[in-house]
Amino acid sequence: MTTTASVVGGTGFTGGELLRLLDGHPEFEVVQATSRSEANKTVGGIHPNLRHMDLRFSDPADLESVDTLFACTPHGVSMGQIDEFRDAAGTVVDLSADFRLPETTYYDEYYDGHERPGLLEEAEYALPELNRENLPGADLIAAGGCNATASILGLLPLFEAGILDGDEQIVIDIKVGSSEGGAGGGAASSHAERSGVVRPYAPTGHRHEAEIEAYLGTSVSFTVHAVDMIRGASATCHIFPNGPVSKGDMWQAYRGQYEDEPFVRMASGGGGVYRYPEPKAVAGSNFAEVGFEVDPTNKRLVVFSAIDNMMKGSAGQAVHAANIALGFEETAGLEHTGFHPIGAP
Amino acid sequence: MTTTASVVGGTGFTGGELLRLLDGHPEFEVVQATSRSEANKTVGGIHPNLRHMDLRFSDPADLESVDTLFACTPHGVSMGQIDEFRDAAGTVVDLSADFRLPETTYYDEYYDGHERPGLLEEAEYALPELNRENLPGADLIAAGGCNATASILGLLPLFEAGILDGDEQIVIDIKVGSSEGGAGGGAASSHAERSGVVRPYAPTGHRHEAEIEAYLGTSVSFTVHAVDMIRGASATCHIFPNGPVSKGDMWQAYRGQYEDEPFVRMASGGGGVYRYPEPKAVAGSNFAEVGFEVDPTNKRLVVFSAIDNMMKGSAGQAVHAANIALGFEETAGLEHTGFHPIGAP
Amino acid sequence: MTTTASVVGGTGFTGGELLRLLDGHPEFEVVQATSRSEANKTVGGIHPNLRHMDLRFSDPADLESVDTLFACTPHGVSMGQIDEFRDAAGTVVDLSADFRLPETTYYDEYYDGHERPGLLEEAEYALPELNRENLPGADLIAAGGCNATASILGLLPLFEAGILDGDEQIVIDIKVGSSEGGAGGGAASSHAERSGVVRPYAPTGHRHEAEIEAYLGTSVSFTVHAVDMIRGASATCHIFPNGPVSKGDMWQAYRGQYEDEPFVRMASGGGGVYRYPEPKAVAGSNFAEVGFEVDPTNKRLVVFSAIDNMMKGSAGQAVHAANIALGFEETAGLEHTGFHPIGAP
Amino acid sequence: MTTTASVVGGTGFTGGELLRLLDGHPEFEVVQATSRSEANKTVGGIHPNLRHMDLRFSDPADLESVDTLFACTPHGVSMGQIDEFRDAAGTVVDLSADFRLPETTYYDEYYDGHERPGLLEEAEYALPELNRENLPGADLIAAGGCNATASILGLLPLFEAGILDGDEQIVIDIKVGSSEGGAGGGAASSHAERSGVVRPYAPTGHRHEAEIEAYLGTSVSFTVHAVDMIRGASATCHIFPNGPVSKGDMWQAYRGQYEDEPFVRMASGGGGVYRYPEPKAVAGSNFAEVGFEVDPTNKRLVVFSAIDNMMKGSAGQAVHAANIALGFEETAGLEHTGFHPIGAP
Repeated sequence: MTTTASVVGGTGFTGGELLRLLDGHPEFEVVQATSRSEANKTVGGIHPNLRHMDLRFSDPADLESVDTLFACTPHGVSMGQIDEFRDAAGTVVDLSADFRLPETTYYDEYYDGHERPGLLEEAEYALPELNRENLPGADLIAAGGCNATASILGLLPLFEAGILDGDEQIVIDIKVGSSEGGAGGGAASSHAERSGVVRPYAPTGHRHEAEIEAYLGTSVSFTVHAVDMIRGASATCHIFPNGPVSKGDMWQAYRGQYEDEPFVRMASGGGGVYRYPEPKAVAGSNFAEVGFEVDPTNKRLVVFSAIDNMMKGSAGQAVHAANIALGFEETAGLEHTGFHPIGAP
Repeated sequence: MTTTASVVGGTGFTGGELLRLLDGHPEFEVVQATSRSEANKTVGGIHPNLRHMDLRFSDPADLESVDTLFACTPHGVSMGQIDEFRDAAGTVVDLSADFRLPETTYYDEYYDGHERPGLLEEAEYALPELNRENLPGADLIAAGGCNATASILGLLPLFEAGILDGDEQIVIDIKVGSSEGGAGGGAASSHAERSGVVRPYAPTGHRHEAEIEAYLGTSVSFTVHAVDMIRGASATCHIFPNGPVSKGDMWQAYRGQYEDEPFVRMASGGGGVYRYPEPKAVAGSNFAEVGFEVDPTNKRLVVFSAIDNMMKGSAGQAVHAANIALGFEETAGLEHTGFHPIGAP
Repeated sequence: MTTTASVVGGTGFTGGELLRLLDGHPEFEVVQATSRSEANKTVGGIHPNLRHMDLRFSDPADLESVDTLFACTPHGVSMGQIDEFRDAAGTVVDLSADFRLPETTYYDEYYDGHERPGLLEEAEYALPELNRENLPGADLIAAGGCNATASILGLLPLFEAGILDGDEQIVIDIKVGSSEGGAGGGAASSHAERSGVVRPYAPTGHRHEAEIEAYLGTSVSFTVHAVDMIRGASATCHIFPNGPVSKGDMWQAYRGQYEDEPFVRMASGGGGVYRYPEPKAVAGSNFAEVGFEVDPTNKRLVVFSAIDNMMKGSAGQAVHAANIALGFEETAGLEHTGFHPIGAP
Repeated sequence: MTTTASVVGGTGFTGGELLRLLDGHPEFEVVQATSRSEANKTVGGIHPNLRHMDLRFSDPADLESVDTLFACTPHGVSMGQIDEFRDAAGTVVDLSADFRLPETTYYDEYYDGHERPGLLEEAEYALPELNRENLPGADLIAAGGCNATASILGLLPLFEAGILDGDEQIVIDIKVGSSEGGAGGGAASSHAERSGVVRPYAPTGHRHEAEIEAYLGTSVSFTVHAVDMIRGASATCHIFPNGPVSKGDMWQAYRGQYEDEPFVRMASGGGGVYRYPEPKAVAGSNFAEVGFEVDPTNKRLVVFSAIDNMMKGSAGQAVHAANIALGFEETAGLEHTGFHPIGAP
């Protein structure tokens, strides 16, 4: 017996990625995808990879009852429509920022406040590597931000292993692809202006700082650059620990944390072209790659973390969490391993 | 009960793609991948998307007995080792050019002759859209060339429907990605020299002319350009038919030919960004897209055809043919639909 | 004594390119750049390469009197404002399509007619290789279209040398960069959708067909593809001559036509990576590269032509023509040779 | 009267860039370009942008006497041939690492030692913004490393203004293009493997750390990533000063340092697409762009610096220094402002 699913906001990049994943998922059946602007048009007319799907966008006003509703609306929308979503579905997975932070103070500082602060405690953060234990049976799940996801996966083992306390100096230098900006976009995201860039687009004060602080209990110095790829977020964490840390300590921390994780793999030295995490190696998959080097000269740890921002950083993470919430096989619908070679991810 | 498979020449791009497909295939179990240069190294050390595979390259001299052997060796190798391959496996699928042309005269003219001309008649051309009827039970299968595949899929309906006789003027202008040159490569394929090109690399006399002539019975004027993508072959066919052809004639020909094909889809006009076939829309999948326009001013038909050269143009086609040969579900292991958006394919 | 110049429509890509050329030109002094949307903003705020220029956009309603006015307005604008332009300047160079076709019938068929048909005979086509003799003293000059320019430069020697009569079958398959679409652009030109494409965007009926026909006296079958570069137009002409043509005939025709041209160079075979014309080799320069191969098997000539669409295909051509019109050194301000290596052109 | 110049090692990317600059330079005349591998071939056969140059590579054993010799040999070569170079030319400008560090201990730690330590004091570091006063009349000039150049230009004003003392925590996260790896290159630099990457290639211990330490007197934590561009180095410096620093302090420091510099421009906030330094905005030019933000939350300064690694980071810097050494106009031959738009730089 399949589980029915709908995607609210199906024309955006994240919505399209969810439709792809759910369409190929052994447990879900997509019964509705909504779009304000493209109602009655075929899904394949917007997402050419889905030309085979026999589905048309419907008006978001006509929500059907389903088992699971995935909301891919812009930030600020789902907090206003959450009751409607929960009336329509037993399980709601929100891919916006609206329920991913645990306290209203974050929304006051980094966003425009929150309309439904009472729900924040109820919502479960989707990242299984951090919050797997609370996901089974969850009925309101909030997918994490892509840059925060990459950063958290890179840093988590250091906190869990006690290598970091939370008072260390941590710089996170992020490089992201153009899909992070979504399907719209003006002059800055046009091909002629956006190709080949290394463009600082969030030098300071990025909202994902709050998310990292909320879930790791540390402040981080965060800077985001746009680079010439479409999918992918790559986080380089420069960390200055309070005491000496050996390569052995690091391996122990990372292996201990991730050896049983189905979607995290280590890439840390060794031979060949792909020695450290990079978005190309995980593009199109739900894998995160994590690796590190120790810099004794500067008493620094350098941690690399790479994900596909639309998969592990968004739609893949959402499906992964939904799988756990609903008691499915964790990896169901997420087994695709990516390609080699691949172009700009 | 799984079918055992080996990949001879597993470090190249095509070999890696086959390993990916076979690893995710419900019927095959990969028991061996050979490599002259990387013996004993892990498959994931070369193909980072396959880091999860527990397999090391072995020496090609130590061929194991398997049900199906896929040969991804350079042109000219498998014709010399074919007996060895057939001793090792009941079914041999060759992805080089060595058995894909039906007559030795083609090898004399376009290659350096053929060592085993007697086998040419025995070998079956892998392209199911052209040769499905002869594939069941075949034990020597030769995958087509990527540019020829794109061209043949574009032109086939016109011959089958009687719109073309074979004496018409046909220009095929091809644009291909850098994976077509394989995993090696000198200065011309370095990133600095190869990025952003529109580079005529085979103005005339490309070997795939022979393949198109052999299977469609028409001569074509063929020119190949390298462009800035990694996967993908896009064929634009400019055709001058002997008499008037209407859009209705064209739709009838193409729909008639392809409506039941699982891996060919039409993209011909309509709205949105992706109105005609393009490699981005099929990258990573086994789909071919075909579309056309009628140019009454110039009494010309323009036919577009786009494939992923490593999938429909090589490894995907090989697996598709093997599925038919071995009686599996045709689409087994080939269901992946591709991504949107995706970078350079 | 410098010649004063203004650029009407200075925020677009072509306008910016003209500002760059005129700013570095030994004879011109830029005294005005207009912009409807960005009036009062600095030129460098839009075109970052011009951050050193001490110039702000002014309102197009406040045209200053100058010696030479370059109009970079969208098609259809300058035909309505031409009197105003000619009042402001002794020489007007129009970079739109408004005066580049010699007869009003072309505008009726390919555009929305013409408001000032009487001026068409007066206007001089800017391409010096075709029309140098009529440029000295010209006071209304119309720059050619980029695709037409590439095509005409490729074919011209064959007509001049009598190798073609005008009744031959000629297919022109064009590949262009994203700057051809201008500085605006919607979903189709966003980085995520436009990167890595081989996208048929004008399968048939492109307006530059008219321009080629008008100036070469032959009809051509024209198809345009968008590829992943920013600057550049590459034309591959597939030509079926009425009789045999040797390589020697071809060399004689091309050398005879172009040996004294300062901005056309041959690239036709030879060794190395760059054996034929390609946009990368001319990016940022006013050079056109032309080359060919003879295909005896198919009785075909293959001619390649590559330009930077914003230089030889637009702003560079305009300055070249203005240099001749005003009696300057032909190459003044256009000496830049381009780079090696360079990314996507 | 022109100054004669030769380029030793003219087939590499840096050698080609120097040939381009010297060919367009009002004071220099290129009389020789040497190449071990391409002797007797035309310069334009390797560097297609120089097809107009009437020059063939000659054997490096046949050095001609010139006024100025530019050495573009791989690291380790010029220290062995320096006497030969100085016999051939009154002024030697070395673009390798062989003379750019002031003390032999750096070569012992970061390279394989030094054969001619006695010359290190004699050599002048080429970067005019740091060392202009010592360049007039210098006869042995060593161009800086590209990553070090970008970093030094970003940090210098903070040291000169007393904002930093040298004991602060400084992280430099660098993103570079593929030309930094030179014209050779194996699998890692092939188009298929190198396109679209964010690849950590020097996580720790990069040699340019030594150069920054040598010239700024501070240790830095340096990490280099390869990204998808060809030309360009972008340095993001994350700095933790000992006390509070205001935006006003920063502007005063940077304006004070650079307002009279012909090749450094500020890009720091403001509107439009290009608000901070980025390689696209300076590609092909000798400009460096520098900008910053203050992050009070994290008590951090973020400084951005972008150059074309082949220009300001190598050949352009070399010509700039030679101009000063020889008493030419500082900006001679370096006036090109770059393009907008441009592809991958």
